[in-house]
Amino acid sequence: MDLATTPDAGPHALPPSCDFTVFGGTGDLALRKLLPALYHRDLEGQLPDDYRILGVSRSDLDDEGWRAEVRAALATHLDPTDLYDGAVERFVGRLHHLMLDAEDPEDWDRFHALLKDRPHPEEAVRVFYLAVSPTLFGAISQRLEEIGVVDERARVVIEKPIGHDLASARAVNESVGRVFAESQIFRIDHYLGKESVQNLLVTRFANTFLEPLWNSQWVDHVQITVAETVGVGGRGEYYDHAGALRDMVQNHLLQLLCLVAMEPPTYVGRETVRDEKLKVLQALKPMTPADVDRDTVRGRYGAGLVDGAAVPSYADDLGQTGSTTETFVALRTEVQNWRWAGVPFYLRTGKRMDRRASEIVVVFKAPPHPMFPHAEGVTTANRLHIQVQPDEGMRLHLTAKEPGPGGIRLRPVSLDLSYATAFEQRLPDAYERLLMDVIKGNATLFMRRDEVEAAWAWTEPILQRWAASPERPKRYAAGTDGPTSATLLLERDGRSWQEPDQ
Amino acid sequence: MDLATTPDAGPHALPPSCDFTVFGGTGDLALRKLLPALYHRDLEGQLPDDYRILGVSRSDLDDEGWRAEVRAALATHLDPTDLYDGAVERFVGRLHHLMLDAEDPEDWDRFHALLKDRPHPEEAVRVFYLAVSPTLFGAISQRLEEIGVVDERARVVIEKPIGHDLASARAVNESVGRVFAESQIFRIDHYLGKESVQNLLVTRFANTFLEPLWNSQWVDHVQITVAETVGVGGRGEYYDHAGALRDMVQNHLLQLLCLVAMEPPTYVGRETVRDEKLKVLQALKPMTPADVDRDTVRGRYGAGLVDGAAVPSYADDLGQTGSTTETFVALRTEVQNWRWAGVPFYLRTGKRMDRRASEIVVVFKAPPHPMFPHAEGVTTANRLHIQVQPDEGMRLHLTAKEPGPGGIRLRPVSLDLSYATAFEQRLPDAYERLLMDVIKGNATLFMRRDEVEAAWAWTEPILQRWAASPERPKRYAAGTDGPTSATLLLERDGRSWQEPDQ
Repeated sequence: MDLATTPDAGPHALPPSCDFTVFGGTGDLALRKLLPALYHRDLEGQLPDDYRILGVSRSDLDDEGWRAEVRAALATHLDPTDLYDGAVERFVGRLHHLMLDAEDPEDWDRFHALLKDRPHPEEAVRVFYLAVSPTLFGAISQRLEEIGVVDERARVVIEKPIGHDLASARAVNESVGRVFAESQIFRIDHYLGKESVQNLLVTRFANTFLEPLWNSQWVDHVQITVAETVGVGGRGEYYDHAGALRDMVQNHLLQLLCLVAMEPPTYVGRETVRDEKLKVLQALKPMTPADVDRDTVRGRYGAGLVDGAAVPSYADDLGQTGSTTETFVALRTEVQNWRWAGVPFYLRTGKRMDRRASEIVVVFKAPPHPMFPHAEGVTTANRLHIQVQPDEGMRLHLTAKEPGPGGIRLRPVSLDLSYATAFEQRLPDAYERLLMDVIKGNATLFMRRDEVEAAWAWTEPILQRWAASPERPKRYAAGTDGPTSATLLLERDGRSWQEPDQ
Repeated sequence: MDLATTPDAGPHALPPSCDFTVFGGTGDLALRKLLPALYHRDLEGQLPDDYRILGVSRSDLDDEGWRAEVRAALATHLDPTDLYDGAVERFVGRLHHLMLDAEDPEDWDRFHALLKDRPHPEEAVRVFYLAVSPTLFGAISQRLEEIGVVDERARVVIEKPIGHDLASARAVNESVGRVFAESQIFRIDHYLGKESVQNLLVTRFANTFLEPLWNSQWVDHVQITVAETVGVGGRGEYYDHAGALRDMVQNHLLQLLCLVAMEPPTYVGRETVRDEKLKVLQALKPMTPADVDRDTVRGRYGAGLVDGAAVPSYADDLGQTGSTTETFVALRTEVQNWRWAGVPFYLRTGKRMDRRASEIVVVFKAPPHPMFPHAEGVTTANRLHIQVQPDEGMRLHLTAKEPGPGGIRLRPVSLDLSYATAFEQRLPDAYERLLMDVIKGNATLFMRRDEVEAAWAWTEPILQRWAASPERPKRYAAGTDGPTSATLLLERDGRSWQEPDQ
């Protein structure tokens, strides 16, 4: 294992030639996200002519069969105004499919032959996207090495879940790390590819107006919410073994927290950013059993109404009773360092909530002294609201004077930056950026092994305490903002969750 | 003279009864500004039934004659949608006119009788608005005292110019101060009644996000611009004796500077704010003759094009050559205190400029370190732009990430607060607020004697040096942004004036 620490001093360039292989090429992730993202990049001319996209799966499809599937997927998942017949045909012309049984050495030989079957195969950068079960990550890596297609420019992309606890995460990382150097392993978290998340780094570090405020002197607390309206759907079996803490908090929410809390690196580059994120994870206040009891809330949705439609309970979605898996987590933590001492970070995520929203709210302290003792109207604390989805944007909430003569009346207003209106251009999907970063070898937005393991190390005591506790997740009705205990978690501190339009 | 220092601990209330006298009731200021402002306040129900408005002038008009003039003035100067027949008639019903020769004691007796000719005259708060030549301020005050209508609740309102130098300002203040206590004297500066100027206080002091940045550590410099497109028009004779420094800088621009630079008072109240403004004026870096030569620029407009129309030169407007009066000033000063040490404040004002704009731009320092060494695009320093007129509003300029995959591209964006769109209501004219403040006895937004004199004390060395210098104002073509020297004043420091849409 090689924790690459060479600074990436230069901009990342497109390699002249590339074979992008998707293991699980007929799966949901490939058809819904990866191939549409690659189509968009091709449409904008970012995929040179001899870039190929190789689909590998157990499906009995030839190239044309897979191309037909992908054509249909593009038609389903893309905005019709982005579909041009010529562009679609050029794109599917890049596609090749190989049916592969991972246990069959001959199939691997055929895969090897496919990679060689191109002009100057030795020049092509090989990307292996493992859109398959994590149980296969190690075995596939092993086979790739055995057939001799892993050179030092090869890259492997893996998605969560990377383990279900620290030990299993280490095992996954070891198994892939036996074949690929750490600098070749791209652990994807699509939240980090969101424009608004990217822009958080720019807002913090290409401007002066935030950093002086970005510390315990001026920040009262931070809230990170990832709320979904969907239930577990067809993922019930996987989900029931994971739960919201493993599925969302350990990766997405902690990654967002890292970007909010990290110190300015020397520059925004691959290892520098990951070094700083790691320091945040290592500074998270460890959870003792008493901390878990006091500072975490588990919930599980019951039946309810979402967007006016009756939806079943988690047990009904799962098709069984007796599960103790949480579909909602709220927790309070702190970043124990000089900058953030004493500032609570409140995280929450849940399924079947009353709205779909991913957002970071940095709530600043109130003015230290009331300067307008006779003012009418409400003055609320300043807040920076970063909307990750939907409708990516940024909003600075402040207090202004309501126009009019006579006494001073205060009113909350907001300074708005809506990405969609400010830039009048289509926002690329997170995968578009991330897949191009993989092709270019820019790992800034990907989780390093030590980050993943540090996040597990912090998460594990919560899992252990929950497992040992006789308490069960609190029921909340689908279509609400979660169990009452999550509200009380903040009320206890004299705070409240920021709801929309506040 | 009594520099009242009693804190105004409570909100200011409308007195139950009031006689609002305008000396110069048929003049331009009265008809164009004061009476329309009072009409608006009446329209919104803020003038109780027994409030009277008394016009005093040398015109031979009875009540009905003045009412006809005022009706015509309202029709000319107000938005037609604000004119309601019933409201206009109710308003003009408050109006009474008295022809008065200031030298004639009998006329003063008639004025006395008019004030007494109402139910419970002893209960009415008397406001005397001296919309007449400053040479009459002392004499009128004297007469008012002699006829016994100045009680401790009486108020006198005076406008600039208050003197043409320190000695003459003192003389005016003395002459009015012999009759009225300082707390009864309201020196009006209509810039301070603007919503956006008011809001500057709220933005600074009802929020936490600005104050930590509001000092020499984070502010690079401050620019205050008051640009007019008009020439001297019919005011040539007055103007030629004043010039831009006396007419605009000594009062309006220095007042705006004070509001930007002042320390947070204990609370936003009458004397507390004026105390802090005074401290700023006293901290302005004194101008030595060498400073004047280096840090000030005088200009005078020549013929040119404004809004596509040919306009004459200042000499032609004035009808004579040989004047040395400036119609444009740019200067650089500093506030010599802990907060602002070394931060330049650049002021400029001129007539016949290329646009009409009053604005304050606080330019923050650039980020201390380039964090995105390979980013494309422009990163500019953060700026807070406060637009006083036209289109009052506030805009925070910052750098954001341009959406798109691949490398990071930076682009300037702005977070906007437009008063007109944020509040969807008519913005009151500055006089509406200020006249109501007079009626309520709230002097927060009025200049105290010591402020006026401190401003003159700082201004006088510039006037003296200019008078002694063989240099003449630089010519600039009407419809431009002033003489080149004004540009060089900032370029010398590696800076530039912020122009619109930058």
